[in-house]
Amino acid sequence: MPTLSALPEFDRLRVVLVATRNPLNIGAAARAMSNFGFLHLRVVNPYEVAFREARSAVGASSVLAAAEEFPTVAEAVADCTLVVGTTAVGSRALRHQLRHLEDGARAIRKRLTSGNVAVLFGSEKRGLSNEDLSHCDWLMRIPTREQHESVNLGQAVAICLYELARSPRSTKGPTSATTRKPATAREPAGSRKPATAADLERITSIMLEALAASDSLQARSAASTREKLRRMLHRHNLTAADAEFWQGMLRQIAWKLQSSKLTPPKL
Amino acid sequence: MPTLSALPEFDRLRVVLVATRNPLNIGAAARAMSNFGFLHLRVVNPYEVAFREARSAVGASSVLAAAEEFPTVAEAVADCTLVVGTTAVGSRALRHQLRHLEDGARAIRKRLTSGNVAVLFGSEKRGLSNEDLSHCDWLMRIPTREQHESVNLGQAVAICLYELARSPRSTKGPTSATTRKPATAREPAGSRKPATAADLERITSIMLEALAASDSLQARSAASTREKLRRMLHRHNLTAADAEFWQGMLRQIAWKLQSSKLTPPKL
Repeated sequence: MPTLSALPEFDRLRVVLVATRNPLNIGAAARAMSNFGFLHLRVVNPYEVAFREARSAVGASSVLAAAEEFPTVAEAVADCTLVVGTTAVGSRALRHQLRHLEDGARAIRKRLTSGNVAVLFGSEKRGLSNEDLSHCDWLMRIPTREQHESVNLGQAVAICLYELARSPRSTKGPTSATTRKPATAREPAGSRKPATAADLERITSIMLEALAASDSLQARSAASTREKLRRMLHRHNLTAADAEFWQGMLRQIAWKLQSSKLTPPKL
Repeated sequence: MPTLSALPEFDRLRVVLVATRNPLNIGAAARAMSNFGFLHLRVVNPYEVAFREARSAVGASSVLAAAEEFPTVAEAVADCTLVVGTTAVGSRALRHQLRHLEDGARAIRKRLTSGNVAVLFGSEKRGLSNEDLSHCDWLMRIPTREQHESVNLGQAVAICLYELARSPRSTKGPTSATTRKPATAREPAGSRKPATAADLERITSIMLEALAASDSLQARSAASTREKLRRMLHRHNLTAADAEFWQGMLRQIAWKLQSSKLTPPKL
């Protein structure tokens, strides 16, 4: 009988709904989460605060009740070592690596064996903003017809979670074993505990401080520099040790710059 | 780019919604059909006749407009050579063969190469009746948790059609696995011209200068810090553009640190 047994690592997935407009879609997402055994919902700035009463969450009221609310994406993904954005856009020039859902799901399942993973879904109208995307390591797309790319939010969540739950065995399958070796072969022998999104956010902030203290950051470009830096760091695949190293170096520099600002050279 | 090209045989599929209560679900089904390139909707005895105006059919009004209405399941499936029922029930004693969605989709794709196939979805409350089921050759089920089997109708249609459209090549068996590129081989959308080792070396040097200028680099540990930094940068997979961005930021910081050193604060 084809019943799904939710794997223990499913408990490490965070479904993050960003700026969702229609609470019915939050309910629909919760229902699909419950269907497939992913029970941790995070909500960033929903348009309607009363989403917990969404009637569409048939059988999934406990998922809605336990949903966590966050004011920013940064806080919602802080404890995750992999942050994946979803997009309907197949053609726009994206600054991120874009994976087919099937490949993306495989990579997510692999990471779930060791750390938390966030999958972000944007608002019904606009999807994820550039600022939202800057928190993502890479993007994933449901393959649709070019003529009709925009998938309903509740359906998109359902399809992604179906694909994630579909065949956990396939990570161990014979085909994946032969095709995926190159990726794992790159990994060095040492500790590869990945950096969390919060680590990357700290590096970003310290770097911004250092730039500001060196008078090389204009106020109007600060936000875009922050986004650009964050996006790049997410692509760099930092380990926790890397993140610590970066933070250590940049902190010393920032501290020095700030302290020399406090006692400016007399001319 | 992961765009779906609907195969000619997709034109032979009939999505049949039986006794649907909520017209929004008919609209949602139409939208998913349009997303995945299955354009023939059939409706048997919907509770609300005005389903063609369903606002949930975003971008799929043509599917709704072309939908055919039938008074009975028999008439709705008359021209099909294979009739497949969907069910949420995994445990009830069913008088039909029950297939996992993935296996079922494979069989449907195979049949579509030669004849029409109907996939039936029952009402939100009760699913397909025994009478409806009697028209089916076999049943198909989306694998869900035993604790929460009931999938929303619009989401069920979306998942089934995603699975049907997902990988038409897989009907040809294991050879497709070898033709598929590994996940890492996929090119992201933007320019991915990699940074050169020289780029990385420049970043390393500027960083070292900045650290020295901020008095946070001891002479005896300079060499090991340089090595550690270089090794990390090589692991980060920088693009040429990334390297330029890093150099730009670090140069400004290093310059500022050095210039404040040249004119030390008088105490």
